[in-house]
Amino acid sequence: MNIVYKIFGGKAHKGLDEIRKILHAVAEKQEFSKKVDLSLCSPMVLPLATDVNNALSSFEQVYKKQIEFISCAAHELKTPVAVLKSNSFNARSYTTIDQYKENFALIEEYSERLNILVKSLLFISRANKGTLRAEFKVVDISTLVHETFIGFEPYVSDMNISMSFDIQPDLFVMCEPGQVSQIFINFVQNSFSYGKPDGYVKVSLKEKDDKIVFSVEDDGIGIARKNLEHIWEPFWQADASRNNDGSSGLGLAIVKLFADMNKAELDVESALGEGSTFSISFNSYKGKA
Amino acid sequence: MNIVYKIFGGKAHKGLDEIRKILHAVAEKQEFSKKVDLSLCSPMVLPLATDVNNALSSFEQVYKKQIEFISCAAHELKTPVAVLKSNSFNARSYTTIDQYKENFALIEEYSERLNILVKSLLFISRANKGTLRAEFKVVDISTLVHETFIGFEPYVSDMNISMSFDIQPDLFVMCEPGQVSQIFINFVQNSFSYGKPDGYVKVSLKEKDDKIVFSVEDDGIGIARKNLEHIWEPFWQADASRNNDGSSGLGLAIVKLFADMNKAELDVESALGEGSTFSISFNSYKGKA
Repeated sequence: MNIVYKIFGGKAHKGLDEIRKILHAVAEKQEFSKKVDLSLCSPMVLPLATDVNNALSSFEQVYKKQIEFISCAAHELKTPVAVLKSNSFNARSYTTIDQYKENFALIEEYSERLNILVKSLLFISRANKGTLRAEFKVVDISTLVHETFIGFEPYVSDMNISMSFDIQPDLFVMCEPGQVSQIFINFVQNSFSYGKPDGYVKVSLKEKDDKIVFSVEDDGIGIARKNLEHIWEPFWQADASRNNDGSSGLGLAIVKLFADMNKAELDVESALGEGSTFSISFNSYKGKA
Repeated sequence: MNIVYKIFGGKAHKGLDEIRKILHAVAEKQEFSKKVDLSLCSPMVLPLATDVNNALSSFEQVYKKQIEFISCAAHELKTPVAVLKSNSFNARSYTTIDQYKENFALIEEYSERLNILVKSLLFISRANKGTLRAEFKVVDISTLVHETFIGFEPYVSDMNISMSFDIQPDLFVMCEPGQVSQIFINFVQNSFSYGKPDGYVKVSLKEKDDKIVFSVEDDGIGIARKNLEHIWEPFWQADASRNNDGSSGLGLAIVKLFADMNKAELDVESALGEGSTFSISFNSYKGKA
């Protein structure tokens, strides 16, 4: 361990020994929270020591995020699993078909919640492992929007929210149509979920400069400015009113993941109580369709 | 970025620039799979460059393990959730109470499987976050073994496996009794799960030198030598015969975690087809009980 120190030698190289000690602790004992003590480093070694510390901090942050992800996933699973367990236990004492029927409706609902969550977890882990299959091709995205929303049934339909479309025809992008369609659906479902009674959801697709922009505007509850930067994070919930809505907490994280894969940019404009506009911009495809 | 290079200067320090470039990629873009190109480094810089690469490999390994953990967890969840979903859907067409009853037994079973898995995930994430509460105290571990197995119902009872105890009285250790009791149960349940018809499970607690050793011996299917080192890893299954047994795949990973917390050492001796002996050694408590 002292080879470098000895070779470099002298006061000017003071701190290299400390750097190597920390790197050894990381490599051998996975002690990622360790940092180089900068006070032990000569001015010459300081920039290198700082780089090492920054790399360690970066890793620690990613590591903690992953731990937090697992923790959040487990907490999201807890409630539906507890409901299923207690309901199936209660059913032991049922005597009428009506009791069973009522209970089964609940079990079906919570099973579906779990199903969405587990599918989302699988998606994200495949993306992280780089094993998410995707076939990119030139797509008539105007038609894709139409096809996506034929027979679309939004989650919340008892609020009398109106839905309108303004779709510019014959727009083409290079993308994975299944993923892009999923993004469209997610935006619209969000708008309905956080909409107001008698409100509106406006879906549009337009060419702007060299970009194709799909956007969904609503006059719903909106998102506070300070929260806008967090909404793409896994399991992040703006506030209590966005909790327990049956969503997995992974919808927008998956949107972000798909947007990155499709080299598209996400944007959101919103003000609390005044509604939100979610949009995604693709590079316009200028080759032959 | 070139400060160090310039200050260190000269051929002898060749490679420091490359090291800093890689550290920057890690810190700023979380590119944990990058490595320093050792062919760019002078003999003097080589040991430091190798240390950096070893630390980066360690990062990458831990990062990939976590991704794999999430992926395995999602896959473990998939089957029970699919069973719950299809069964609750099928129930829509039921007409008799017997149909419901049969279906509910299955739903209860799979809900319980999910429940065990989710509880295990919560445990592990709490341990990783350092928020697992534990109250260590001096425990009469001989009595703890007795209490743990009063009224114990092993998973597999239709195989006619006999269970015997050989417990040395009045042994004391400093530990968290809830966690230690969980380890005892896990060992015994494993022995029953992988036991043979008409086989045996022998539970013993003995003082050996300065250690208190709890062990569970069985004459079951055993574990191949090459697999022994992996059994404490999350979601690791020795072979197909250890799959789909209703276990969460996290049992022994949690045992390892609890053993570490209780400063106890795990050991397993096994030969395929000849049975296994799982043991855990605690430091004997020599103070006043």
